[in-house]
Amino acid sequence: MSKHCSLQETAALLQAANKIVLCSHVSPDGDTLGSALSLMKALQKLGKDVIVTVDDEISKVYKFLPGIESFVRFQNDERIAADLLVVIDASSLDRAGNVSQCVSAPKTLNIDHHISNTEYADYLYLDTAAAATGEIMYELIDTLGVEVDLEMATCIYTALYTDCGSFKYSNTMPKTMRIAAALLEIGVKPNEISDSMEIKPRSNIEMLTKVLETLTFDADGKIAYISINNEMYDKDVDTDTFISYPRYIEGVEVAIMFKAVEKAVTRVSMRSRNLDVSEIAITFGGGGHLRAAGCTIEAALPEAQQQLLKALKEKLV
Amino acid sequence: MSKHCSLQETAALLQAANKIVLCSHVSPDGDTLGSALSLMKALQKLGKDVIVTVDDEISKVYKFLPGIESFVRFQNDERIAADLLVVIDASSLDRAGNVSQCVSAPKTLNIDHHISNTEYADYLYLDTAAAATGEIMYELIDTLGVEVDLEMATCIYTALYTDCGSFKYSNTMPKTMRIAAALLEIGVKPNEISDSMEIKPRSNIEMLTKVLETLTFDADGKIAYISINNEMYDKDVDTDTFISYPRYIEGVEVAIMFKAVEKAVTRVSMRSRNLDVSEIAITFGGGGHLRAAGCTIEAALPEAQQQLLKALKEKLV
Repeated sequence: MSKHCSLQETAALLQAANKIVLCSHVSPDGDTLGSALSLMKALQKLGKDVIVTVDDEISKVYKFLPGIESFVRFQNDERIAADLLVVIDASSLDRAGNVSQCVSAPKTLNIDHHISNTEYADYLYLDTAAAATGEIMYELIDTLGVEVDLEMATCIYTALYTDCGSFKYSNTMPKTMRIAAALLEIGVKPNEISDSMEIKPRSNIEMLTKVLETLTFDADGKIAYISINNEMYDKDVDTDTFISYPRYIEGVEVAIMFKAVEKAVTRVSMRSRNLDVSEIAITFGGGGHLRAAGCTIEAALPEAQQQLLKALKEKLV
Repeated sequence: MSKHCSLQETAALLQAANKIVLCSHVSPDGDTLGSALSLMKALQKLGKDVIVTVDDEISKVYKFLPGIESFVRFQNDERIAADLLVVIDASSLDRAGNVSQCVSAPKTLNIDHHISNTEYADYLYLDTAAAATGEIMYELIDTLGVEVDLEMATCIYTALYTDCGSFKYSNTMPKTMRIAAALLEIGVKPNEISDSMEIKPRSNIEMLTKVLETLTFDADGKIAYISINNEMYDKDVDTDTFISYPRYIEGVEVAIMFKAVEKAVTRVSMRSRNLDVSEIAITFGGGGHLRAAGCTIEAALPEAQQQLLKALKEKLV
């Protein structure tokens, strides 16, 4: 269990420390990176000695973030002493990577917005109503008495943009939009952020092309699915957004992506307009939400497709 | 020339009229439709007799807009008498379609945000700083003394969403974001709007698949282009967004879409990260902006590709 802090208490912890390590979570995204960098810049303005670390590779997408070159990755046998370790946007300690073994600090602080937070740090500032940890940073920097400059604003805007999908997701709140407005006022260019965030490796578009070729309709166009077979599968290519292609076709009720990750293991993602696809996922040992669910079927691709489509069509009737 | 009105004068014109025709522009989009519907609902609350019209088909995408079924399309020989004709989001009279011949009204009012406005109406409310005409509607409805309800808010949010590309475009202003925040406060669900707006006909995804198969790189990956040849070309399929696929590939400086609209006529769209592509477009008789330009080359696809790529590579060196 952590001691839950107010924004003022959180600011006080930061103000009392001199040498501070800020840690982003592994598989770093725009929220954890942007949040850490904005706080780094604010703490530097207060004269603090700040290290930002992440125990992972950082995608080239984020090279536009001011200060991104400051990130270091500790060797597992490195030992760093600090007054305060701050873990940012990580809901559990394993998401922090090697920082818990590399950094020795009398106090740890976790700043997060995930409802699944496991309270692993000594001190916790948790705001589950925040769309992104970046939202918290905007208020925290203000509480620290630092003026948000354009570099910090760019980092925070990127954090918001990431976690609320360019203001498309359901977690986008009036407050999110108001903070975004304030960041634009500071000079953030929304088109420059979105242009930077849209960049994809060539392999991604090449995979998309191959995957779209597999688009198949069933149940009078109510089901649309795409497939990645064993030959196509490449664990290094991010295919997370591909399901949006069948999902947003006129008349489609349920969209599916089948991904043959091994010869006899097929991962299934489902999206629906109305049908409860989590029920189907659960019957295959998976889970999820009403309109977004998934499961893993221990079968080769064609067999897995057959099983799932059969179950789905029984529900669709 | 039109008489330029303040928001108060615009509201007064509406309040003084009893029978009002609201007209959206041809090739109707979310801004013109959402703006017209929000104003319709506000005027109906004031007891006005309102007709909404558009001289065109309305895409099925917009069927989620509250009140969309109210739109009528006049026959060219119809004659409607009204106290006021309001043309919404149309910068020139031809964009209004048949309304100028079908509606006889002592006064015409144009509400718009386009800098290219031709001042064709008797009265004009023009705010070129507004990201969308929907932004104007939010303030106009308030000036009319009507409370924006969830249906109006949904229409206005859709208008903003359309014209600023889900808050990604450079026209997204702090004020745009603040109005969006206020609309979310009223109960608009951002994910429901974006889900509705993403729906595409099956033919669109099928065309995208074919077009992505043509993806070709040149100049060490600095140029990426896609092509639609005569066989693939279908004037009924919207391919406007396809250029974003080559555009957002890592390392690409200039993205091009070639579209063979006739045997010996090829339309060219270009997007660049830094290079001034308008210069190249101009040498081919086209034009545009620094980073987004286009032209039409009177040649078959392979010949047009060769000409354009040659000119482009000379500039890229």
